[in-house]
Amino acid sequence: MVKLNENYQNVKDSYLFAEIARRVKVYEETHPEKAADIIRLGIGDVTLPLTKSVIEALHEAVDSQAVSETFKGYGPEQGYAFAQEAIADYYARNGVEVKATDIFISDGAKSDTGNITELFAKDNVVLVPDPVYPVYVDTNTMDGKNIIYMNGTKENDFLPMPDENVKADIIYLCSPNNPTGACYNKEQLEAWVAYALKNDAVILYDSAYEAFITDPTLPRSIYAIEGAKKCAIEFCSLSKTAGFTGTRFSYTVVPEELVFETSNGGTLSLHNMWNRRQCTKFNGTPYIIQYAGAKVFTEEGMKECQENIGYYRENARMIAETLEKKGISFTGGVNSPYIWFECPKGMESWEFFDYLLENAQVVGTPGAGFGENGKNYFRLTSFGKHEKTKEAMERFNSLF
Amino acid sequence: MVKLNENYQNVKDSYLFAEIARRVKVYEETHPEKAADIIRLGIGDVTLPLTKSVIEALHEAVDSQAVSETFKGYGPEQGYAFAQEAIADYYARNGVEVKATDIFISDGAKSDTGNITELFAKDNVVLVPDPVYPVYVDTNTMDGKNIIYMNGTKENDFLPMPDENVKADIIYLCSPNNPTGACYNKEQLEAWVAYALKNDAVILYDSAYEAFITDPTLPRSIYAIEGAKKCAIEFCSLSKTAGFTGTRFSYTVVPEELVFETSNGGTLSLHNMWNRRQCTKFNGTPYIIQYAGAKVFTEEGMKECQENIGYYRENARMIAETLEKKGISFTGGVNSPYIWFECPKGMESWEFFDYLLENAQVVGTPGAGFGENGKNYFRLTSFGKHEKTKEAMERFNSLF
Repeated sequence: MVKLNENYQNVKDSYLFAEIARRVKVYEETHPEKAADIIRLGIGDVTLPLTKSVIEALHEAVDSQAVSETFKGYGPEQGYAFAQEAIADYYARNGVEVKATDIFISDGAKSDTGNITELFAKDNVVLVPDPVYPVYVDTNTMDGKNIIYMNGTKENDFLPMPDENVKADIIYLCSPNNPTGACYNKEQLEAWVAYALKNDAVILYDSAYEAFITDPTLPRSIYAIEGAKKCAIEFCSLSKTAGFTGTRFSYTVVPEELVFETSNGGTLSLHNMWNRRQCTKFNGTPYIIQYAGAKVFTEEGMKECQENIGYYRENARMIAETLEKKGISFTGGVNSPYIWFECPKGMESWEFFDYLLENAQVVGTPGAGFGENGKNYFRLTSFGKHEKTKEAMERFNSLF
Repeated sequence: MVKLNENYQNVKDSYLFAEIARRVKVYEETHPEKAADIIRLGIGDVTLPLTKSVIEALHEAVDSQAVSETFKGYGPEQGYAFAQEAIADYYARNGVEVKATDIFISDGAKSDTGNITELFAKDNVVLVPDPVYPVYVDTNTMDGKNIIYMNGTKENDFLPMPDENVKADIIYLCSPNNPTGACYNKEQLEAWVAYALKNDAVILYDSAYEAFITDPTLPRSIYAIEGAKKCAIEFCSLSKTAGFTGTRFSYTVVPEELVFETSNGGTLSLHNMWNRRQCTKFNGTPYIIQYAGAKVFTEEGMKECQENIGYYRENARMIAETLEKKGISFTGGVNSPYIWFECPKGMESWEFFDYLLENAQVVGTPGAGFGENGKNYFRLTSFGKHEKTKEAMERFNSLF
């Protein structure tokens, strides 16, 4: 008889966005006159279309697939060299040296942060921040791994630091953080790298929002820290950088330096293991997407993307300004598309969700959906349209 | 200290196509005057470009991503309903009823046949045919699962049948088969479904080459067999059907009927587990690819694809005709893009590889790369150009 992976019984229902949708629907049905007023600043999806150079590149690549002479079938599972090299150049322009052959192109940071768990044995201690992007917890729960949490709180600016009394083998860090928008500085990341090197631990560094960093003193890559190539894997994506949430292009850096001992006294290379994993269970990102994705990393392509990011930054500024005026404490908004704030009047996050929906017709994300430490917090995103964000903030302003 | 997944030490190096490339390179260097004559009928990649309606649809979808009003961000992880419904219609036209909501759209049958292993506990007996597509073995080896083999031989036409003395929990079937081109008939699949139902086993049915079936009596889906929805998952792909090897669109059917008991007396639904897996570790196939992929399943789109498949079929016919004339026993060629034949003169498959390369400058795939039972067999594919295939067969004809 087939035996199923019963760890799935321990994965909590992913009810957060479903529950948000349900509550919004109930409100719309009970207040039909207000339905048109609802402004959604909850889900972290972009609203601006793809940039001009990406659209042009997509058309070019499609045309090349229409004729035998230029038609591309199976590509390298790791991604085309032209795309790997474009990314390595982008890193270099940001002052970080990454080998093109250490870059694996994929279809999503969610896929890669999930699939990477396969490379690790069951008996590891996995350290995850709370609040946190739920995928880190769910994927390790599916694997039956032992998860422990580190607290992100107002006191540490939602940037938990290593604790020598806690022995972790695998450490998830997300900076700029989803959901809190908080961003580690160089000294803080140095402390994490030192901890990982001392404990032979691996850092899984989610840097999906790096393009939102404007402060030049903040690292945009874990590899800006010396020694990180011996202890860290980095996950990046074009989802928010270039509006690729529906177009799908990500990249993961697994340095060749990541070699660890095995129980039989040998060694295994995480780079070689990930390469084997991708060659066995993946056939590469579509050629037309890679062709267009590579354009994003050129100076011209990134300039266009930064214009779009600038648009979202202006939304973040409006939200932050409103919160400041009201004396509400928050993280993010600068160097991040997310704004994370303490619910006013001591409200619990779902209570505040209902309050904001009923009184201002604004939809956000309750912090409780990201962990225990989020239960009195709320997330707004800057990915909306200017007019809608402005209107939402005017209502917020009148409400409190 | 981080503990790596040491099962990776047991995965054999994927040397098959690397070794082929190495031997061809050595030959080219030692025989530069013959290098231009080499004809490659080894790797199973298509050579015809994308069809007209797919190219048009890709351009349309790209244009829709250029403007806010039609821009698509995150889509459903399961795939867009329009694509699921197009596939369900295609099944219906082939006489099989599959619910649109049981269809999960993905980026590759390789991804899905690999990732599906996550849903099963370690302590299952996995039954795999030999010869076999190496991914089934490698992915289960990475998981540390117990793999047993069933022999595909000349005696059973490379179509192994269930053996009541063998207790398997998970069964891989690939029909039309890669590498042998052999295709199960209805009675044979009924026997497999009966075995699975009797033993509470799950069949993982790889149907990636179904569009090559011309014999109307041969099932193109495991769901043509009564009871299959209670025991089988089916994997399909547009890679060979529509030349999507570099464009990436696949679909996997996980029927809601697939419910199994857990050790604590409860039940788990494979449909719900796969849904949870995909929602947690995947963000959907790119919108533009889904939009174009859906067109393939229309009557017009499939007509164009069948014209291309017809082109490859003519290659298969030429190869089969040559083998018949020489009295060489083979499977496939009809209802399949692959032709699998016994190496002439009792040669071992790598020996024959060298012989054919040196004497006819034709590159194929040695059967040894697919398992023990392949060591005296050889695979040729019909995915080349007519002129090249014709020329290769003329040389073959003169050689033997």
